[in-house]
Amino acid sequence: MEVYVLRLGHRPERDKRISTHVALTARAFGARGIYFDTSDTRLFESVRDVVDRWGGEFFIERAESWKSLIKNFEGVKVHLTMYGLPLPDKLHEIRNADKILVIVGAEKVPPEVYELSDYNIAIGNQPHSEVAALAIFLDRVLEGHVFNAEFEDARLRVIPSERGKKIIEND
Amino acid sequence: MEVYVLRLGHRPERDKRISTHVALTARAFGARGIYFDTSDTRLFESVRDVVDRWGGEFFIERAESWKSLIKNFEGVKVHLTMYGLPLPDKLHEIRNADKILVIVGAEKVPPEVYELSDYNIAIGNQPHSEVAALAIFLDRVLEGHVFNAEFEDARLRVIPSERGKKIIEND
Repeated sequence: MEVYVLRLGHRPERDKRISTHVALTARAFGARGIYFDTSDTRLFESVRDVVDRWGGEFFIERAESWKSLIKNFEGVKVHLTMYGLPLPDKLHEIRNADKILVIVGAEKVPPEVYELSDYNIAIGNQPHSEVAALAIFLDRVLEGHVFNAEFEDARLRVIPSERGKKIIEND
Repeated sequence: MEVYVLRLGHRPERDKRISTHVALTARAFGARGIYFDTSDTRLFESVRDVVDRWGGEFFIERAESWKSLIKNFEGVKVHLTMYGLPLPDKLHEIRNADKILVIVGAEKVPPEVYELSDYNIAIGNQPHSEVAALAIFLDRVLEGHVFNAEFEDARLRVIPSERGKKIIEND
């Protein structure tokens, strides 16, 4: 299964850190790449720098038009929102998809997003975090991929350990 | 099982939004409360405001000394770090605990934290987000509590729906 993420409503002056967490979570939990509706060179470079050091082929780029991206996406479109249906009710259906576009907004998203998506899905109906919502969604849909993920051509790798930090550097 | 969270290294000028996401994720996913090592009135008030509107008894407060808090905590202490052992390897042991203190740092944590914790646990060994790590940890340990959580005396409740936003207000 191929999963892509669309980050809507990113405001470079306000959301840099949260959006970085969204992008790195997408990568670590098995998405192929992430689209933004705004360009943010500094953010894009910092995520590409992580990909360069930690491996894999994750992409981050601006979508010319988020609306066209959603409309033309050939696969299942899932909008994560605290107002949606609980993931467990739809997980089985969603897991049948070959391609998924997961849409995560900042504070507010245009009402059209609810209409253009195949599913509006909630990770609990409480206010919390789009980072948490994306992590849980990817973990459930990709069945714990985060714990088995391999990243090709990594220059840095962690050796899991009981105490302290062990990193291997390959050059 | 009772779960508490300790947020280390919060810098009010830099981490307000990420720390808010950490706190709201802790609440939504079933923790009883969160301790910070720094006071941040504006952040604490905004989280208490969420509790006031959305219900439950989640607390947010400053720990006088994070070191004493960890040392004196009568339960299992789990530090979430990308350098640790994979959660699935230790999940069974951790689930046996009656009380858990989950420690989540900002960028760097003092080396002592690795020593004072019973477990150093990774949610994948890639750089991503403490919000994502906390969400996955709580979801796995509390077995999907986020999808069944009830919050007492809530003034606001979401009615899960396929499209749009439905909220009930009780006064």
